[in-house]
Amino acid sequence: MEHLLTKLELGFEEMVSIRRYLHANPELSFQEVHTPAYIANYHRELGLEVREGVGGRGVVATLRGAKPGKTVALRADFDALAIQELNDLPYKSKVDGVMHACGHDGHTATLLVLAKVLTEMKEEIEGNIVFIHQFAEELAPGGAKPMIEDGCLDGVDVIFGTHLWAPTPLGEVWVRQGPIMAAADRFEITINGVGGHGAEPHNSVDAILIASHFVTQLQSIVSRRINPLKSAVISVGHFEASNPFNVIAGKVELKGTVRTFDEDIRTQIEKEIELLLKSVCEGAHATYDYTFFRGYPPVVNHPEETKFLAEVAGQINEVEQVIECDPLMIGEDFAYYLEKVPGTFYITGAKDPSWETAYPHHHPQFNFDERAMLIAAKTLGLATLEYLKESK
Amino acid sequence: MEHLLTKLELGFEEMVSIRRYLHANPELSFQEVHTPAYIANYHRELGLEVREGVGGRGVVATLRGAKPGKTVALRADFDALAIQELNDLPYKSKVDGVMHACGHDGHTATLLVLAKVLTEMKEEIEGNIVFIHQFAEELAPGGAKPMIEDGCLDGVDVIFGTHLWAPTPLGEVWVRQGPIMAAADRFEITINGVGGHGAEPHNSVDAILIASHFVTQLQSIVSRRINPLKSAVISVGHFEASNPFNVIAGKVELKGTVRTFDEDIRTQIEKEIELLLKSVCEGAHATYDYTFFRGYPPVVNHPEETKFLAEVAGQINEVEQVIECDPLMIGEDFAYYLEKVPGTFYITGAKDPSWETAYPHHHPQFNFDERAMLIAAKTLGLATLEYLKESK
Amino acid sequence: MEHLLTKLELGFEEMVSIRRYLHANPELSFQEVHTPAYIANYHRELGLEVREGVGGRGVVATLRGAKPGKTVALRADFDALAIQELNDLPYKSKVDGVMHACGHDGHTATLLVLAKVLTEMKEEIEGNIVFIHQFAEELAPGGAKPMIEDGCLDGVDVIFGTHLWAPTPLGEVWVRQGPIMAAADRFEITINGVGGHGAEPHNSVDAILIASHFVTQLQSIVSRRINPLKSAVISVGHFEASNPFNVIAGKVELKGTVRTFDEDIRTQIEKEIELLLKSVCEGAHATYDYTFFRGYPPVVNHPEETKFLAEVAGQINEVEQVIECDPLMIGEDFAYYLEKVPGTFYITGAKDPSWETAYPHHHPQFNFDERAMLIAAKTLGLATLEYLKESK
Amino acid sequence: MEHLLTKLELGFEEMVSIRRYLHANPELSFQEVHTPAYIANYHRELGLEVREGVGGRGVVATLRGAKPGKTVALRADFDALAIQELNDLPYKSKVDGVMHACGHDGHTATLLVLAKVLTEMKEEIEGNIVFIHQFAEELAPGGAKPMIEDGCLDGVDVIFGTHLWAPTPLGEVWVRQGPIMAAADRFEITINGVGGHGAEPHNSVDAILIASHFVTQLQSIVSRRINPLKSAVISVGHFEASNPFNVIAGKVELKGTVRTFDEDIRTQIEKEIELLLKSVCEGAHATYDYTFFRGYPPVVNHPEETKFLAEVAGQINEVEQVIECDPLMIGEDFAYYLEKVPGTFYITGAKDPSWETAYPHHHPQFNFDERAMLIAAKTLGLATLEYLKESK
Repeated sequence: MEHLLTKLELGFEEMVSIRRYLHANPELSFQEVHTPAYIANYHRELGLEVREGVGGRGVVATLRGAKPGKTVALRADFDALAIQELNDLPYKSKVDGVMHACGHDGHTATLLVLAKVLTEMKEEIEGNIVFIHQFAEELAPGGAKPMIEDGCLDGVDVIFGTHLWAPTPLGEVWVRQGPIMAAADRFEITINGVGGHGAEPHNSVDAILIASHFVTQLQSIVSRRINPLKSAVISVGHFEASNPFNVIAGKVELKGTVRTFDEDIRTQIEKEIELLLKSVCEGAHATYDYTFFRGYPPVVNHPEETKFLAEVAGQINEVEQVIECDPLMIGEDFAYYLEKVPGTFYITGAKDPSWETAYPHHHPQFNFDERAMLIAAKTLGLATLEYLKESK
Repeated sequence: MEHLLTKLELGFEEMVSIRRYLHANPELSFQEVHTPAYIANYHRELGLEVREGVGGRGVVATLRGAKPGKTVALRADFDALAIQELNDLPYKSKVDGVMHACGHDGHTATLLVLAKVLTEMKEEIEGNIVFIHQFAEELAPGGAKPMIEDGCLDGVDVIFGTHLWAPTPLGEVWVRQGPIMAAADRFEITINGVGGHGAEPHNSVDAILIASHFVTQLQSIVSRRINPLKSAVISVGHFEASNPFNVIAGKVELKGTVRTFDEDIRTQIEKEIELLLKSVCEGAHATYDYTFFRGYPPVVNHPEETKFLAEVAGQINEVEQVIECDPLMIGEDFAYYLEKVPGTFYITGAKDPSWETAYPHHHPQFNFDERAMLIAAKTLGLATLEYLKESK
Repeated sequence: MEHLLTKLELGFEEMVSIRRYLHANPELSFQEVHTPAYIANYHRELGLEVREGVGGRGVVATLRGAKPGKTVALRADFDALAIQELNDLPYKSKVDGVMHACGHDGHTATLLVLAKVLTEMKEEIEGNIVFIHQFAEELAPGGAKPMIEDGCLDGVDVIFGTHLWAPTPLGEVWVRQGPIMAAADRFEITINGVGGHGAEPHNSVDAILIASHFVTQLQSIVSRRINPLKSAVISVGHFEASNPFNVIAGKVELKGTVRTFDEDIRTQIEKEIELLLKSVCEGAHATYDYTFFRGYPPVVNHPEETKFLAEVAGQINEVEQVIECDPLMIGEDFAYYLEKVPGTFYITGAKDPSWETAYPHHHPQFNFDERAMLIAAKTLGLATLEYLKESK
Repeated sequence: MEHLLTKLELGFEEMVSIRRYLHANPELSFQEVHTPAYIANYHRELGLEVREGVGGRGVVATLRGAKPGKTVALRADFDALAIQELNDLPYKSKVDGVMHACGHDGHTATLLVLAKVLTEMKEEIEGNIVFIHQFAEELAPGGAKPMIEDGCLDGVDVIFGTHLWAPTPLGEVWVRQGPIMAAADRFEITINGVGGHGAEPHNSVDAILIASHFVTQLQSIVSRRINPLKSAVISVGHFEASNPFNVIAGKVELKGTVRTFDEDIRTQIEKEIELLLKSVCEGAHATYDYTFFRGYPPVVNHPEETKFLAEVAGQINEVEQVIECDPLMIGEDFAYYLEKVPGTFYITGAKDPSWETAYPHHHPQFNFDERAMLIAAKTLGLATLEYLKESK
């Protein structure tokens, strides 16, 4: 195993270089073209079996060890976000309005170099390793589901995945048995008033004011209607009425997300949003359209595999602490893999120790400490080899 | 004079055709290129003296009558709005997101054909007529001011102008001594929160919620802080935070307009908006930028010229009623002309009698009864000839 | 006439003393007992014909001049308000929670001393003078209506009344032909949620939050739904949910007033309030009760009598200016008298010149310059005598 | 022990009768006079040592068993709430505006009859039992603290207490190691605007509107500023501005409660409330007073004693289920006892099986299934005897 760790340390420079290349060339969810081609090519040059277009735009590479054994899957996602990067970096995004603001560039670089190292160790490996490169994690319905339907988990015994996490200090690994990430739903709303001249409010129905009343009252769902012992988030991230300054808005478009851990609260919120929306519109002579898109279910880690991963992580030099964490309110379609096979999803701390606080994920100045990629590669790689050895 | 009226009736078909051509080819304020060229060309073919690029993009044509006399100016504006037309018409706007939604196409067509008819009557005319084709009426600082500075009123004794008005029935002419249109100001606001992941509100400062609280509280300025016997309008027409659904907005941009008739209320509102904005932001850990652009002053009609125009209008067959109207809350840079020379600005009813109600100006389905152009041409033309005759 | 003015000057001290006595002993609308008895007694001692209990609690005294002629009515109201006086005055209200905060104490003192002076001049008077002391002006349906029904205007040819007005400088008299005061309506609302423990919002329906959302949105009626050229006021003056701090309110009571000058806007507001209330409650699982009480109609002054009063006022030394004023948004049941007989209602300035600003009427620190009573007595008295003389 | 249970069953009728007597005669926190006298008298008639006025208004009775041993304390609170009872019951509260709406009448009746039964069993008892009858549980700073300071826990080895809980089904007992109840804080706010006439909003500063904006925005603290994985409640239970309908409110009083389990969130909320309040007032030309009263700390149960109580409860026939529950957001000054001596506080289900849902505690129609008193008496009594036996 020492072999593995040393080789990864030697590969770190390449990880950084791949990550920066991907960072500079981000692609939006469901629009990935160059990224999967790049990944497939990399694996192909390693001599692995490669399937492209899995479930749409996914890439799956398989390494067959020299000896028979179980099959471990490792997953990295590779899509970016519709955010204009505000970092001033040599490898800043070259694509206007698109940015790797969640670290998927790092996930991919980690997995590629890990694949290279494991390929070099092929002779020692007792079983198979499946590298799942997933598209479209950021946008439900996501890429995991179609990739599973297209067979990416066939024959897989266990799956591991991690998220580089900028708010968590470098050197910490966070694990959790049971739910670690939330149900992440999405809603879209149109409020239809009556547009008109900015000087004549009484001849119009001002959709901006109605939407403002709605967003204001929306807070009362979480603050008053949900059991305070339960967790729930409702965020409106998009509010658009791009009229000239002197035109009263006849239409507003809202988009947002809902995060929950309980099915009944999820359903309650879906209904309460519409009840509020309906009433605010009716009280103001307006109408509305409302669509609630159920997103990913919660990510629920399997207890045995989680304990196993925590022990493995504890053996790695750079890991100072393995922590049993609170669940995170974010969604992840890793949830689907764990509905099919045992496994665990965990957090790899990626906050540069020199930062007082990290920019949050999805922020236009998001970044992470690249050394976290080495830690992620080591935990994933070690977990893979130990699992294959133990389960022989 | 019968001559004039008959000739205009014969010219009505051409008015319609010019108006529809302009309607199909709208240009935004301060971006007009083809429209002023078209206008200049028309006047040039009539053989008038033409100045282009007046004050920027304006066109001024001068008709010198066969006999000496006073000088009358007539004004039409020719810019369009950033609105996506939703009408289904043969002459629908061909430019995406740009529309003649305020009738300036009709103003221009009216003035062009009136110029043609008056040119034909040149031998009878005792004095001069200046046709002012103004750019950029919709967007302060507007085209009137630079055109005046560039000499368009030099030597002018009186000015007349009208607005085709879709909510007013065809056959009505509305006049008013003193203020007929409001001070029309503009404001732009940026609210700066802290963007972040939609699932982590506590690590973000949600600019959409703050802006919604602001728009909500903004209503209290008009409802509680302004003397109810005074008129004031504050409209937010633009609210933009175009993030993905799962990103908490770090920034919102608002744009709006303020309409008043009194300088002290104008100033009070400018201050109260900032006081509210400041407090809402401070209470929510956000910051802001605020700019208040003073727009056009009120349009204040001169009493004598207004009485004169009302009498002239009363002589026209198609005019069923001349009404002393309430002031309108809209702004107009015709205000600047009336600060320099005597004159009057009036409303020409343009609601098709078959419509129950008209779409308001600046609405994506705005339209007007084209017969109003003939009425406008007759009142402007008759007022011009009678003024020149009387003032000889 | 000089006689009258001199006598009133001599009577000023008594006016002050009566006013202060009444100020210290205020009685609420429809609960007046001692005040009307005091008034009736005063007139009885003058030897006038006195009717008590007119229309309920009103007092009417009639002075018959030595010579025949027309009949002039003068009116003063005498009720107080449910306000806790916060002035520190020797004649501060002795009744907890009740205060003459609108100057009716002054109106009554003025009329009593004027009656005394006119009685002394009885021999010169050609006609009759009816002193109408009205109860319950502050609370619709008010005292004017039942007093009229009980005959207080029988045989009356003209009526005059004034309001002492603290925000208007002493020495100014404000008059207005046509509407001078607004329609003043009242509404009462109960919002019914579900009470509960303060720690369990999800098991309750928080009526305080719902009412707060309602009051917040209510502002949009005036700011967005009423023609900005029209005047309208909606004020919620009473918001009560007096629970212990840790009990979620199951019920809130709101009371408020609406002021308008146009019947259609009055009706629109009555409906819009309910539409908003209904929607806010429905969106929050609550119910409501709503009652809209139509109060006094607008006070509409008769043109001839208004011109007459203005001329009379102009002759009085202490009157520095007679001003044609804007209408006031307050209501007055003087409206009913003017629906029956010609007359006018006007404002007598009562701001002490040494105050920078006066406390508004209905404020717990309200007061007025008592010298205004002398001015009011002079204008009312002079108008009466001149009217009787001229109309002989 | 069978002895104890049978005797309690025989005593049930008396429990009901005492409880109903207390229910009909409620007394407010810190104003209890007759209730403690009644309690002291009852214990005195049993022949126990009784101390009255403990810590103010508390009563402590001590039963000394025939044999030496440890000392167990049992606690019941006896104050009522400022709520007008809306139940139609033969034993309905005789005191206007005061009601036992939280079950403290039941707690007291349970403890009194339990004391009687244990006194009858005195000869078998190995140790001492202290009956703590506590005043003023509903109103911080509460009665527990001064009673402890006045010695009520002196010599006590362990303490048990329970809350009859109407939303929990009869037959269930809820226990929890660690925090079972929240920190319960209180705040009081005055918003000072400028009062005035309802028709003149521009001359006033409308405190009701400002308070409504504040309550509306207050929701954003829980919905946006607190980690969604943490629990927090902010409830405004009292909103008072009791003006006449036509007077704009110059002052509003608000009272409310805050519930948390974490000290840092408690402190954050204390500050965020003031930040919001300050900003809303400053943006509207108003001022404020704000006081935050820190109430009871969380009730933190001791693990060993909680396990012990759970086992004891499991032995009782009427107890169908002993459940490890979620923490409750309510506060309880039982917290203070547990800071001094080991023990546990638990929930005794009291929902009548025939009710679909129970009215929440503090509701004007609150009631509980009286049979829960028998269950409470049995668990408390059995726990006492077993503890004394085991710890001998």
